[in-house]
Amino acid sequence: MLNIGILGCGRIGQVHAGSLQHIDTAGVAAVADAFEDAANALAAKTGARVMTTDQIIADPSIHAVVIGTPTNTHFDLIRASAKAGKAIFCEKPVDMSAARIRELITLVEGAGVPFLTGFNRRFDPGFATLQARIAAGDIGDVELVTILSRDPSPPPVSYIKSSGGLFRDMMIHDFDMARFLLDEEVVRVFATGSALVDPAIGEAGDVDTAVAVLTTASGRICQISNSRRATYGYDQRAEVHGSLGLIKANNVPENNVEFASGAGFRSAPAQHFFLERYAAAYRAEMMHFIACLGAGIAPSPGIRDGLAAQMIADAAAQSLATGMPVDLD
Amino acid sequence: MLNIGILGCGRIGQVHAGSLQHIDTAGVAAVADAFEDAANALAAKTGARVMTTDQIIADPSIHAVVIGTPTNTHFDLIRASAKAGKAIFCEKPVDMSAARIRELITLVEGAGVPFLTGFNRRFDPGFATLQARIAAGDIGDVELVTILSRDPSPPPVSYIKSSGGLFRDMMIHDFDMARFLLDEEVVRVFATGSALVDPAIGEAGDVDTAVAVLTTASGRICQISNSRRATYGYDQRAEVHGSLGLIKANNVPENNVEFASGAGFRSAPAQHFFLERYAAAYRAEMMHFIACLGAGIAPSPGIRDGLAAQMIADAAAQSLATGMPVDLD
Amino acid sequence: MLNIGILGCGRIGQVHAGSLQHIDTAGVAAVADAFEDAANALAAKTGARVMTTDQIIADPSIHAVVIGTPTNTHFDLIRASAKAGKAIFCEKPVDMSAARIRELITLVEGAGVPFLTGFNRRFDPGFATLQARIAAGDIGDVELVTILSRDPSPPPVSYIKSSGGLFRDMMIHDFDMARFLLDEEVVRVFATGSALVDPAIGEAGDVDTAVAVLTTASGRICQISNSRRATYGYDQRAEVHGSLGLIKANNVPENNVEFASGAGFRSAPAQHFFLERYAAAYRAEMMHFIACLGAGIAPSPGIRDGLAAQMIADAAAQSLATGMPVDLD
Amino acid sequence: MLNIGILGCGRIGQVHAGSLQHIDTAGVAAVADAFEDAANALAAKTGARVMTTDQIIADPSIHAVVIGTPTNTHFDLIRASAKAGKAIFCEKPVDMSAARIRELITLVEGAGVPFLTGFNRRFDPGFATLQARIAAGDIGDVELVTILSRDPSPPPVSYIKSSGGLFRDMMIHDFDMARFLLDEEVVRVFATGSALVDPAIGEAGDVDTAVAVLTTASGRICQISNSRRATYGYDQRAEVHGSLGLIKANNVPENNVEFASGAGFRSAPAQHFFLERYAAAYRAEMMHFIACLGAGIAPSPGIRDGLAAQMIADAAAQSLATGMPVDLD
Repeated sequence: MLNIGILGCGRIGQVHAGSLQHIDTAGVAAVADAFEDAANALAAKTGARVMTTDQIIADPSIHAVVIGTPTNTHFDLIRASAKAGKAIFCEKPVDMSAARIRELITLVEGAGVPFLTGFNRRFDPGFATLQARIAAGDIGDVELVTILSRDPSPPPVSYIKSSGGLFRDMMIHDFDMARFLLDEEVVRVFATGSALVDPAIGEAGDVDTAVAVLTTASGRICQISNSRRATYGYDQRAEVHGSLGLIKANNVPENNVEFASGAGFRSAPAQHFFLERYAAAYRAEMMHFIACLGAGIAPSPGIRDGLAAQMIADAAAQSLATGMPVDLD
Repeated sequence: MLNIGILGCGRIGQVHAGSLQHIDTAGVAAVADAFEDAANALAAKTGARVMTTDQIIADPSIHAVVIGTPTNTHFDLIRASAKAGKAIFCEKPVDMSAARIRELITLVEGAGVPFLTGFNRRFDPGFATLQARIAAGDIGDVELVTILSRDPSPPPVSYIKSSGGLFRDMMIHDFDMARFLLDEEVVRVFATGSALVDPAIGEAGDVDTAVAVLTTASGRICQISNSRRATYGYDQRAEVHGSLGLIKANNVPENNVEFASGAGFRSAPAQHFFLERYAAAYRAEMMHFIACLGAGIAPSPGIRDGLAAQMIADAAAQSLATGMPVDLD
Repeated sequence: MLNIGILGCGRIGQVHAGSLQHIDTAGVAAVADAFEDAANALAAKTGARVMTTDQIIADPSIHAVVIGTPTNTHFDLIRASAKAGKAIFCEKPVDMSAARIRELITLVEGAGVPFLTGFNRRFDPGFATLQARIAAGDIGDVELVTILSRDPSPPPVSYIKSSGGLFRDMMIHDFDMARFLLDEEVVRVFATGSALVDPAIGEAGDVDTAVAVLTTASGRICQISNSRRATYGYDQRAEVHGSLGLIKANNVPENNVEFASGAGFRSAPAQHFFLERYAAAYRAEMMHFIACLGAGIAPSPGIRDGLAAQMIADAAAQSLATGMPVDLD
Repeated sequence: MLNIGILGCGRIGQVHAGSLQHIDTAGVAAVADAFEDAANALAAKTGARVMTTDQIIADPSIHAVVIGTPTNTHFDLIRASAKAGKAIFCEKPVDMSAARIRELITLVEGAGVPFLTGFNRRFDPGFATLQARIAAGDIGDVELVTILSRDPSPPPVSYIKSSGGLFRDMMIHDFDMARFLLDEEVVRVFATGSALVDPAIGEAGDVDTAVAVLTTASGRICQISNSRRATYGYDQRAEVHGSLGLIKANNVPENNVEFASGAGFRSAPAQHFFLERYAAAYRAEMMHFIACLGAGIAPSPGIRDGLAAQMIADAAAQSLATGMPVDLD
């Protein structure tokens, strides 16, 4: 039985605690949050103890931590947890600074602790099937990857201001997905964007509509497009064109009902809420983490995947700023 | 070069004349219609001569006739054409009376003339593919056939009164489709129906909403449902459940456009007009007729298929009237 | 907080216990099963006490029972529970004998205890949406209902022998669905069937492929078809044709991935396992039961719905045996 | 009655002649081709006279010419036809050189003759519906356009060598579609590509897999991707994301049949052959041309649309060569 400490009892911490309730070989032993009420509520639901983050990290009976606190606390918590020999499940982004992620890589790899970066979409049944079938050779050589990702509605401008910008906050998921599906490292990035959804986002120095073109050394190409608003739900699609065929993950509708009338055939919008859309992914992600700990295998995506996506995001932001493509080392 | 005489220059005669313009080995040589204007108009379009039906049947240079006149004229025209040794393409129904169709079978088979009964739906790319794949063994043994057929809107009550009733006028197409897909003769029929679309149809002694259950000697079952009105287009579907799989022909949409909004995803209605929906079927039907004449092969469906469908329709009408299933000999 | 006793800790008892874990206002207080291991296992998962069914029914701190024991025990358990004033959630069928269900109705209604018959499919998001939109008038007057229901593979012949036959064991779900969607009582039933999937089923006196036609007093018609085997998953579809439009619930695919190659476009089979396919339905069903208890409202479908479906099943079995339609009183 | 002269009796000339046979107000009066047999064959089918291109252009009874000859002959034929006052329907590309197209614009506009550039896809029922609904305001402001266009298989390398390259030969259709759907001029182009399908295409100095990003002055963005090979048919899709919704044109399948088995649900590939896929578009294009001549309205897309697409293609080719985005004046 693995004892897990939940650091951060907000929305995402609760999701991970919920996933652990479906796993027989692990349990939530302790929870911590800066807000006492949040910690108490999650403790009541799970039967876990309320502790501080320091206490959890110091407790030798806790085998692993799940870090779901604000991004600016990740660095210190990862450092402390690695030193304490804890396995680490850290929400994305690992950190806003690639330099600091490099520092953490040294620490984490030095300590030899398992590390999972929380790119949950890799565990979505649809996207995971895409990758599995590419790996199985079903579509032959990967040539063109197309990723469309659109949020139901933009976050508040206050959030935008401290988000690091669309490429680091939103498209970073798609950069990781691109790496997952391209099966080769990205060497060049061109990105552009506009504030079309809300002028206030433009005034805050960010964009809400953006595209990127990624290329690999062998010439594979990935196109990504993002919008901060989609009236028809949470639009999450990917398709991969290969030498033997095309494989794509379509949206997940709210239900399977179709209504026919003189106006045609109408089916349900795409699921709106990311926690519903990716519910299965979050469960599979935690199962993977726990299974890896049990089997002594390194979880994937690891901390270096967190760095790689961050570096593409930095390059995309630079491309937007300069209007020029950016080469990655 | 086969010379074809078109008997009846109404809507369906024009369709068949149009199909012949796409066929190199046959042409419209002569046209006849009780209304002189109709005959003249079709003659102008095709370059054919205007003649009477008697003249066409008597003309030794005409190899085949296409009969698209009112049903009550079919008997005499078929009899005369068979005696004259003409190949015959006759619109369904061959005749409203099974007894008279039997009389025509004797004549037609005695004369040895090729005969095609105009069950156009067998030539629809969708339904033809169903039958071809069943014949190829793709779904194994046929077990359950489901046919849904609904018109965009009911005909005038005046038409209903002389139509022979829904089973002989509308569901007869589905009875032929059932025979086409069941791959075994129907031995028992249960049918029921109601006037739900328009009370005037009920007052005229007919139904506008009806179902039938057909069974074969080996226990295969076919369900058919009809409605005289579908707000979303001309609903024409069939599916066949077999031991190895299911195969179905879906509706044909007016276009391939999808519109997504907060109300969900909306696609086009089914094509409304039967001449548009079955345009490809009419062309393929005529190609089959001409190809059979050229190759000296009997066209299919033949006159006996016309009789078989009529007998099922008669049995269905009797089942509706009595409330009991009816056995076919 | 409502204390629930689970009678029967098999597959379905575990599902209902699992649903209760997601509900804040109710909990599993006690579990009982003829097999001690089954009871112990469920107790360990839920923190409930292990008791006998008699003890649970006698315990005044238990507010409601969930009956998931074999059908032949339902009668005694319902009688005892009703006498003890317990709210009752009973799996379908209530009993194999309509006469005995009538006896239970007198008892249950006499005792005034809430009663839910476990027709889970009414709570499926797809079918529930159909009914809600019919009730909202979206398709106008209901005219034709089509229900297709096919199991992934037949049960063992040993099960078939004691099942009461396809109509009482399998199609009973569809009879309840027909009543749910027709919005009017069924007055006449015609049914037929064959043993096409497995001759051993025929030798056991049952059919594995069957259809039924149900009619209502106003002339609405419902067609149902069943097969004990579908190679492509658990086929569960319904569509309702009305005066203003058509509404249908399509199958639920295993995932949202599509693969395109020279052979065309391939998407996932329908979900195979009924517990996965109806997972959301089981949760919603329990929520409805608990919510009704909390609000003092009668749950629906109630015990009379259990009787009504059973009577249609009896009539269908009689129709199959006699070859004739059967009128319901 | 408008008399049309067909210049070039190859595949595309035959298509346009066929379209004219469905139009009552115009007819093929004369045909010309460098290969006598081709001209004779088309003359036999249409009843037109065989003439030389010079004779057709000089004949005052011919009102319009349809130019379907090789691209390098367009300049001279357009110049001569404009001088002769003929209405002109010219296949794309107008010319490989933007400078020469500018010269032709001066001539054509000076002569005041109607001119249609043969971007047939604008007339496809799917893409035309997209544009019509954008124009009607259904999706609000256009923000992101995504165009995916993939040929069934690459042309011979010999063709590639004289094609002007993928951007001028293949993606030019998508550049025109982008202008059609963006509803604003393109000001900046970034393009990249690889030879992944066939190394021989790379050795010939061209790419077979390519993407482009187009931006407009107000910040609208269009992503295009092309491949010279798609195993699953002729992949032709476009979608437009706007402030009120998304609209997309899906592929057109070969038929409407679906096959279900343990491997899932399989539907037909996309139509493979461009003449079949765009048959309706070619007919609508000719109807538009003839209707414009009849009404005295300028056909659209005109010669300036031909120039605009060519300039984007030139910019894309330059972007590929330099690796940098290119601004359009």
